[in-house]
Amino acid sequence: MSRLRAPAEPDPRFQKSVEWFRRAEAVIPGGIYGSKSPGFVVPGSFPYYFDRGEGCRLYDVDGNEFIDYMCGYGSQILGYGYEPVLKAGFDRMTRGDLLTSPSPVMVELAEKVVSRIRGMEWAVFTKNGTDATTLAVSVARVETDKPVILMAKGAYHGAANWCSSNEYPVLDDRRDVVEFVYNDAAGLEQLFATHAGQIAAVILTPYHHPAFAASQMPKEDFHPTVHRLCKQEGSLLIMDDIRANFRVHNEGSHVAFGLEPDLICMGKSIANGSPLGVLLGTGELKKAASSFFITGTFWTAGAPMSMAMACLEEMDRLDVLSHVNSLGTVLKDGLRASAEDAGFAVTVSGTPAIPFLTFDDDPDLYLNQAFCARMARRGIYLHPHHNWFISYGHKDGDIQQTLDASRNVFGEMAAER
Amino acid sequence: MSRLRAPAEPDPRFQKSVEWFRRAEAVIPGGIYGSKSPGFVVPGSFPYYFDRGEGCRLYDVDGNEFIDYMCGYGSQILGYGYEPVLKAGFDRMTRGDLLTSPSPVMVELAEKVVSRIRGMEWAVFTKNGTDATTLAVSVARVETDKPVILMAKGAYHGAANWCSSNEYPVLDDRRDVVEFVYNDAAGLEQLFATHAGQIAAVILTPYHHPAFAASQMPKEDFHPTVHRLCKQEGSLLIMDDIRANFRVHNEGSHVAFGLEPDLICMGKSIANGSPLGVLLGTGELKKAASSFFITGTFWTAGAPMSMAMACLEEMDRLDVLSHVNSLGTVLKDGLRASAEDAGFAVTVSGTPAIPFLTFDDDPDLYLNQAFCARMARRGIYLHPHHNWFISYGHKDGDIQQTLDASRNVFGEMAAER
Repeated sequence: MSRLRAPAEPDPRFQKSVEWFRRAEAVIPGGIYGSKSPGFVVPGSFPYYFDRGEGCRLYDVDGNEFIDYMCGYGSQILGYGYEPVLKAGFDRMTRGDLLTSPSPVMVELAEKVVSRIRGMEWAVFTKNGTDATTLAVSVARVETDKPVILMAKGAYHGAANWCSSNEYPVLDDRRDVVEFVYNDAAGLEQLFATHAGQIAAVILTPYHHPAFAASQMPKEDFHPTVHRLCKQEGSLLIMDDIRANFRVHNEGSHVAFGLEPDLICMGKSIANGSPLGVLLGTGELKKAASSFFITGTFWTAGAPMSMAMACLEEMDRLDVLSHVNSLGTVLKDGLRASAEDAGFAVTVSGTPAIPFLTFDDDPDLYLNQAFCARMARRGIYLHPHHNWFISYGHKDGDIQQTLDASRNVFGEMAAER
Repeated sequence: MSRLRAPAEPDPRFQKSVEWFRRAEAVIPGGIYGSKSPGFVVPGSFPYYFDRGEGCRLYDVDGNEFIDYMCGYGSQILGYGYEPVLKAGFDRMTRGDLLTSPSPVMVELAEKVVSRIRGMEWAVFTKNGTDATTLAVSVARVETDKPVILMAKGAYHGAANWCSSNEYPVLDDRRDVVEFVYNDAAGLEQLFATHAGQIAAVILTPYHHPAFAASQMPKEDFHPTVHRLCKQEGSLLIMDDIRANFRVHNEGSHVAFGLEPDLICMGKSIANGSPLGVLLGTGELKKAASSFFITGTFWTAGAPMSMAMACLEEMDRLDVLSHVNSLGTVLKDGLRASAEDAGFAVTVSGTPAIPFLTFDDDPDLYLNQAFCARMARRGIYLHPHHNWFISYGHKDGDIQQTLDASRNVFGEMAAER
């Protein structure tokens, strides 16, 4: 948060958002916590509370309308209020969502994801994505009987103390978590030497999508080095596909990047926003995964699983993967062109359906903030510090409206420079 | 699980359950993990999968009907498929459940729980109950800058590595978690001396409800000792009210036991089974709670919060607390009487709405297993190793039907002795 300028005066368009936030501050630490905190976007330039969503559109509590490119932080892949998925949830809820034992949909969904996600032979369903990454680390430690986890600096694997970025020594849960610089094959090799005999796993996202920075694709030698080192050392490869899943490849983002992970974490979009995380693994790891106590009262609830079944079926039926990547490519190309036309050097990074824009020579992201705040004023919700997402709710016209707005905004910014 | 006899042949009534379980074993570690695993009840004597629930009744995949005393492990306080709560959820889901920012119901619900739960001034909403207990521990450590957490041996505070009972050294996250024997005030005093200057918090359930044992009420000197030691040492008291909440006292179970905790964890029944955990705290701790990164993609979803609003309103409107305690008292008294009439010495423990029965001199719980398996054959779902729950879905007739069955079962068991 320290990278932000001092909060601006709230836009009067967001009066009710501000009123709700004042009430919130009285009863909730920070008003809104974590990644949805007003301080994570541009304070005063974005709404704080939404009333409803439909397709790719969000309507805030003041009645302002936005084309939303956050998709509930990636969770909406079909769009808000997508009826066939809702209907599957309502049916299951009416017959009982969380029963004393699971309903058969847990088995059907496990079969469906295992047959779909390449290389994976079993699934455990959780609530949070963080549950899945934390479990993956436990499975890797149990299987290898080694403690060390290597993760990329700046990678987000959840808000648990073993991987989150809080800086209280008393919360230190990272004594066996060692960071490497993404794409630095030589540095990784060095770490494998330093911690030889101790490395349970490398945890990786399919490509690097940190907050506050452009996304990075893997360099040619990076993934082969990861594989070679893991194989030499007997360490496992954990793929954290939670943010990217189903927007990069239908069989798991690892396939698009030539990776063969031992464990894969999924979540977010798998049930179009209904709370469901998944840990998948190879057959070799099934015994380790069943050898310690794994549970959560809500983990066996049927409704999110029924919604995931419907979501996966709709993704296939509509070829959502092509849709979001095709629209994302238009968006990425268009943004790059309109920035260049206005004389701005920008980097449009990420995979097409998970795009992000950063201004070159803008280390504090002030230009990003100015750009996104101005886009928000035009009804386009783009995050200045976190990658964006395209859903099936976005249509050609939404992308065009976004690109038209971007031309105006880049033009204004150029004029004021 | 080691306490169980070898699995019996499955009752032919559960043929479809067994078929689903065989399919599950191929794609899910252990088939069903954790507390819902067939091994946690009596293998072969209980259904593994339920098709639907209505009120207090569950219907398994073979069409068998049960009066259910597990209530989705406590989460169903109004009963399965309770319409006013479902309707609140459907409305919110139709308008968008998980939006890019919260909807105002997050503020309304925080205000509602803070005004209701005695002594608490702020709330953070999570998904799992374990999220809330884990956060409570982090807040306590940040506030006190001390590492040690004292917890009662056998108490269940979630399935995270810091508190769960797995025995892999490589998963050891408990180096600063020290166990005491519940109700042993002198032992606790000793631990405070041993770890003087290092104790962040004591985490306690309002009374002791371990698995595989009778529930225990606090002895007269226990809570006053806890308070005195915490005060002397500057340690916090964390109340884990997740299992008991709203079945003991409407303002939090701590009120019924004269406790004044600094942090309270809730979950399970607060939204009648929709996934929602809550951490509440005193005003003094608000700053600590907002000083580190707390988040989860699904944590701000509106539907579980709208359902919690409706659930809390219905609990008050119907005086659910009196209902479940009054029925629970009839059940407890009736079970005790029918056991005694058959010549069995039993302990019927727990608060009335969270009752449990154990046979005296039955350390391996074989008599419990025999009793519950026979009750299940009569369509009454009682867990042999975990306390039970009463919901508003239970009515006088259900309790009577249960007591009638128990008379027959105790009689049979006495005849076979």
